Amino acid sequence: MSLMKYDLGHGQEKNWIVSENDFNSLFLGKGESIMCLGNGYLGLRSATEEKYVGETRDMLIAGTFNKFDGEVTELPNAADLTEITIFINGERFSLLQGEIKNYSRNLNLKTGELNRNFIWSNKDFGKIKFEFKRFVSLKNLHLIGQKVSITPLEKNIEVKIQSGINGQVSNTGAQHFTEGEKRVYDSKYIQYTQRTTESNIDFVSNTVHKFEINKEEVSPSSLIVMDRRKVYYNYDLSVKENETLVIEKISNVFTSRDKECEKLSYEELKEFSLENIKKEYTIGYEELQSESAKAWEDKIWSKCSIKIDSQNDYEQLAIRFAQYHLVVMTPAHDNRMNIGAKGLSGEGYKGHTFWDTEIFMLPYFIYTDPKVAKSLLEYRYLTLAGARKKAKENGYEGAQFPWESAWLEDGEVTPEWGSADVITGKAEKIWTGFIEIHVTSDVVYGTWHYYKASNDQEFMDNCGYEIIFDCATFWQSRLEWNEEKQIFEIIGVIGPDEYKEHIDNNAFTNYTAKWNLELAMNYYNELKENRPDLFNKLNEKLNLDENFTKWASKINKIYLPKPNEDNIIPQDDTYLSKEIIDLTKYKNQTNIGSFFKDYNMKQANEIQVSKQADIMVMFLLLEGLFSEEVKRANWDYYEPKTLHDSSLSLSTHCTLANDLGYNELSYDLFRKACDIDLGPNMKTSDAGIHAASLGGVWQCVVNGFGGVRMIDGKLRINPTLPNTWNKLEFPLHWHGDLLKINVSQDELLIENTTKNNEEIVFTHRGNEYKLYDNISIKLG
Amino acid sequence: MSLMKYDLGHGQEKNWIVSENDFNSLFLGKGESIMCLGNGYLGLRSATEEKYVGETRDMLIAGTFNKFDGEVTELPNAADLTEITIFINGERFSLLQGEIKNYSRNLNLKTGELNRNFIWSNKDFGKIKFEFKRFVSLKNLHLIGQKVSITPLEKNIEVKIQSGINGQVSNTGAQHFTEGEKRVYDSKYIQYTQRTTESNIDFVSNTVHKFEINKEEVSPSSLIVMDRRKVYYNYDLSVKENETLVIEKISNVFTSRDKECEKLSYEELKEFSLENIKKEYTIGYEELQSESAKAWEDKIWSKCSIKIDSQNDYEQLAIRFAQYHLVVMTPAHDNRMNIGAKGLSGEGYKGHTFWDTEIFMLPYFIYTDPKVAKSLLEYRYLTLAGARKKAKENGYEGAQFPWESAWLEDGEVTPEWGSADVITGKAEKIWTGFIEIHVTSDVVYGTWHYYKASNDQEFMDNCGYEIIFDCATFWQSRLEWNEEKQIFEIIGVIGPDEYKEHIDNNAFTNYTAKWNLELAMNYYNELKENRPDLFNKLNEKLNLDENFTKWASKINKIYLPKPNEDNIIPQDDTYLSKEIIDLTKYKNQTNIGSFFKDYNMKQANEIQVSKQADIMVMFLLLEGLFSEEVKRANWDYYEPKTLHDSSLSLSTHCTLANDLGYNELSYDLFRKACDIDLGPNMKTSDAGIHAASLGGVWQCVVNGFGGVRMIDGKLRINPTLPNTWNKLEFPLHWHGDLLKINVSQDELLIENTTKNNEEIVFTHRGNEYKLYDNISIKLG
Repeated sequence: MSLMKYDLGHGQEKNWIVSENDFNSLFLGKGESIMCLGNGYLGLRSATEEKYVGETRDMLIAGTFNKFDGEVTELPNAADLTEITIFINGERFSLLQGEIKNYSRNLNLKTGELNRNFIWSNKDFGKIKFEFKRFVSLKNLHLIGQKVSITPLEKNIEVKIQSGINGQVSNTGAQHFTEGEKRVYDSKYIQYTQRTTESNIDFVSNTVHKFEINKEEVSPSSLIVMDRRKVYYNYDLSVKENETLVIEKISNVFTSRDKECEKLSYEELKEFSLENIKKEYTIGYEELQSESAKAWEDKIWSKCSIKIDSQNDYEQLAIRFAQYHLVVMTPAHDNRMNIGAKGLSGEGYKGHTFWDTEIFMLPYFIYTDPKVAKSLLEYRYLTLAGARKKAKENGYEGAQFPWESAWLEDGEVTPEWGSADVITGKAEKIWTGFIEIHVTSDVVYGTWHYYKASNDQEFMDNCGYEIIFDCATFWQSRLEWNEEKQIFEIIGVIGPDEYKEHIDNNAFTNYTAKWNLELAMNYYNELKENRPDLFNKLNEKLNLDENFTKWASKINKIYLPKPNEDNIIPQDDTYLSKEIIDLTKYKNQTNIGSFFKDYNMKQANEIQVSKQADIMVMFLLLEGLFSEEVKRANWDYYEPKTLHDSSLSLSTHCTLANDLGYNELSYDLFRKACDIDLGPNMKTSDAGIHAASLGGVWQCVVNGFGGVRMIDGKLRINPTLPNTWNKLEFPLHWHGDLLKINVSQDELLIENTTKNNEEIVFTHRGNEYKLYDNISIKLG
Repeated sequence: MSLMKYDLGHGQEKNWIVSENDFNSLFLGKGESIMCLGNGYLGLRSATEEKYVGETRDMLIAGTFNKFDGEVTELPNAADLTEITIFINGERFSLLQGEIKNYSRNLNLKTGELNRNFIWSNKDFGKIKFEFKRFVSLKNLHLIGQKVSITPLEKNIEVKIQSGINGQVSNTGAQHFTEGEKRVYDSKYIQYTQRTTESNIDFVSNTVHKFEINKEEVSPSSLIVMDRRKVYYNYDLSVKENETLVIEKISNVFTSRDKECEKLSYEELKEFSLENIKKEYTIGYEELQSESAKAWEDKIWSKCSIKIDSQNDYEQLAIRFAQYHLVVMTPAHDNRMNIGAKGLSGEGYKGHTFWDTEIFMLPYFIYTDPKVAKSLLEYRYLTLAGARKKAKENGYEGAQFPWESAWLEDGEVTPEWGSADVITGKAEKIWTGFIEIHVTSDVVYGTWHYYKASNDQEFMDNCGYEIIFDCATFWQSRLEWNEEKQIFEIIGVIGPDEYKEHIDNNAFTNYTAKWNLELAMNYYNELKENRPDLFNKLNEKLNLDENFTKWASKINKIYLPKPNEDNIIPQDDTYLSKEIIDLTKYKNQTNIGSFFKDYNMKQANEIQVSKQADIMVMFLLLEGLFSEEVKRANWDYYEPKTLHDSSLSLSTHCTLANDLGYNELSYDLFRKACDIDLGPNMKTSDAGIHAASLGGVWQCVVNGFGGVRMIDGKLRINPTLPNTWNKLEFPLHWHGDLLKINVSQDELLIENTTKNNEEIVFTHRGNEYKLYDNISIKLG
């Protein structure tokens, strides 16, 4: 069984290309996910033009949630626009048959174009050269371009092309759409409509084809075919030896949820999308792709490029890969939407938003593209009604953010019941939606983090304070008084470490809850004193005076697990008293979850074994609260017990390891983080890329090796590059200025490229510095 | 492009085997449909164990109709039990790869077993012999057995088997089920449940595997896997060179609509089906298959065999093929169900019942297996409420049977709107459900036909009279008075010839309507005179006295199109005045519908061109009404204008041609009728077999060449064999006796094998005969 091999590109494209050099139908999911195209509006898995058994053809459009009977809401799989079935002399083209030579498939991260090349041959028609290109436009978010070139090298051939729109796709069997209309306009433009069954969102897709032989446009004989949920053309062409047949397929998709289409009637939406495809069709594939590549350059690479000059090229590729996907997955165009745990690259986690956004992806945007960070937080603001509903339904006050979040009004969308245990038949209750409550602190942290890094007072006035206050109100209502100990506790939760369920006083949860209350009290005082108008408005809306009294009455009695005699902070009330076993074999695993081949979840609950960073995340968020000594002791205690079975674990550990001077380990963890999607394990990305892990790769680089942190509102820059790195260069937005940070083994160079602030204050290794134009600090 | 080639079997199996000798993934639908397995309870398309792009994996269970949002009700595609994915040394087994030798796939019509054999090889693992066997039991209607044998001939191999239950299947994208439970019992029995979304029918499937190497049972390492709508085991085994690995997969499916399960709760249904699979599992594939084969022998072949001794073996195979499918398609176990236009072999026509049943399939059962005929008519009786509703909704009286019929209470289920015209975007109204009203006469005809052939007075008392009376009441209310002509007309209909829509006074419709009224009036008089109790009961229920007055007041004024000066009966008021064109090129077509490459439906309406038999069917049903002269003139006029674009056309024409002495033509039409499914056209059966055509094949043989007809209630036997036939032998049920009819070129031999009647009266070439034990009549 051969694995795919990755290539990084050469020459000008060096470290811009994710490449596979072998076709293996056992691992279709890998390429579909990691080579996924998109623009935050739509995500298109890179299933090939020709179909294979085992493929997952998904096109997901951000925010278009729908509920199938009895299930939780999810992003529906829209009608497929990319399928192109090719027959050569009557035989269906498939890479499972014939001979393949010079195969390569390349995703160009710089241009967003996917390219597939090979020579296919058999004895009947000899060698045929194929090239497939496609992109999802970053300029026109609705647009998909495809271009197929077929050159018979030895014989004349007859080519039949079947291509159109296929609405027979589903979400692994669940059908979210009623069948709509099928139309052809001007004997050329195919239109297909569908409507979600429960949320009643109209989708309109259009597609059109253009044919050239040796660069001369030709009109093949064509026959329109309609099937259930499917409409396509059959085209027949003859191609002579050494002629090149080029098929361009230009497609678009619009929905009634699109902001620009909200006011259109269904008929107007059809008309609008048709006009769009007509316009784009005249422009043609190459020009449309150039426009999209230019958008990538203008919006992303010219502004956000990170340079890693390392002995190992893979690392430069990995950070670009992460940035590419952070663009593809993020609905930056619409603040009513957020990022799903698998982005828009697969059906995993149903497109739902988790704490992953605030803790793992948001930092990237805060420092690299702050307007996107703002949009993501505005989404949380727009879901406050749902968060209040959730708190109320649970008997609490204020706003409790849902563990899983989808459309604005949905509130909690975590499924309540998971798969049944196949043996007992009892469905396993999914507890996260009920008791993994730290997400409320995480949203507050993200809000504060963005504010402190951006100084965006307008956002705070409109959204931020309200989030912080109402979450504090939730926390005070969530606290439980322990009469015996005379303390407030938080009982029966899941912390970030999901191998421990129904635990009491999870350190992460208690610390961040108290921190939220403190933050709220500080802002209460600050606004009351300095911003009476705003204060009065918020006071009226959120009943601040009364809530402040409640906050104040409880805050000093909240139980915070303190370091014990060995400096170890108990992760929860019972963790440290559980059995310790040898975890070596599970630590060096190729596939995550190997622990569960020997133990079940109930047993895991009774062993000192962790899925992922828990206290370590707390150290990163609230690092000013803990001494290095405590951090080191806890690292040494907990890391060996942590299996990193969540993709949310490695980057946190990498960053902290770097802080603690565990440099080799830090580098090793970074490499493992890069490998989560891009590495050689061929099955882990099947359900989609790991959004948080890709944010985590950036965190390793900038928070870890770059040493950038916001601590108590202040910028700190303590870089330590891996030995193998010569240089690291990255952009950093701070207080409205764009800094260019340049780190080598012996120098830290910072330039303020925008100079909106007269001076930027930051600390470096305990000293405070002021940046005017630029500053150079010797390292080592 | 190579077509499949058919083989007929040899030796003992001669003319029992439908065989393909080549694998071609372009034509998967052909084999899936024509080799479909089933038993009237369930129909299983013969998609292969391993999946291919382009396959249609359907398992349809009779009567389990469900409506997807905004669509008409259809038979839902139940969770797939047959998929078995095989990996050899880590590579997925697929016939698209490697080398295939000695390929054959055989459906044994005698035993109902499907068998697939070949040697698959590549350079890594050498030659491997594969054998796949499966059956759907005719003994336990819920049971599916599969057996896979794998013998590596040159090297030791590692085999991985993925097999279980897959509920991700849909009806061409429409999902009719909510996801249910997944369970494993005794680490062996997999159970999967699903429920239809609208009709709330529970389906419970179970499957279990057994492994042997060289006939020793082995327990491979196994791992249960759950996915969305899917549960399966991964099994790993090592097989040495020349050892044979055998995998048996025994599966079942039960639904809450099953008569035997109606009173079970959901939990009881699960338990019941589990007990069933446990019992069957201990019996094992070979014994289960023997039991099923014995049921085929006992219930079908020992009782219903038809022998054709012809120079061409294909014809013997074709009649067996027709009989096989007539069993597979027909829900003989449950009189709440009827036959779909594609049986249970595909999604075409959604499992709906048409006039096809009474006119094309029912005759087979009337004469070959009368209890099934009765059950099919009881279905119509049980749908009378829906038929009355339909009449009432249309402003008529009595009972109007729906053009398309599904579950008992559904009434009319013909979709009202067809696909939109892709150019104009205007959906085409489907008129059949509104105006193809002759189905009401057809049901009456079937009722009367069964009664006259069976003498089943109990059926008539319980069901038959009521159908006949209430349909007569419909017809009298449907008649429209033409003041000018002083006649009753039937305006704005579609007759059997569907190339003419919105026509007036279709001969078939008017004649059969009047015939229905006459029949009702006769029975009214008869019952009133001789069966006062029954009469009073029916009179009270159906208001017979009043209705009789209405019937009587109109019957003599019903307009019946009469033969013109050329003896031609106008098919409708305008047919004969339409344009006549040269249809030669469309008459000799390989694919039906070629006419519409040159004309559209509107143009067809203005040309003397017919899709199918229209007046010809009338001649068959009411043949006593028309002279041979008239029949011949109309044949000579209409047949050349008939494209036989419906599979309902050939058998009628074949039978009539034989009557008229057009022997070669008759034989030619018979062969064409046999070819509709079994012939070399590889695409026509994709959506399922042609149920009416298969009944038609029997009609060609028994009504045509056998010359058997019920005319005005009397048995007539006028055989004329094709030149190439030596002998024809067939069973014939008449008035409760089973006759054995033996026809050669020079003798007609009839034996009464049961002798329930002292004498059987029949006519032959105008003379009346009486059959006691047996009778021999010289022919020629």
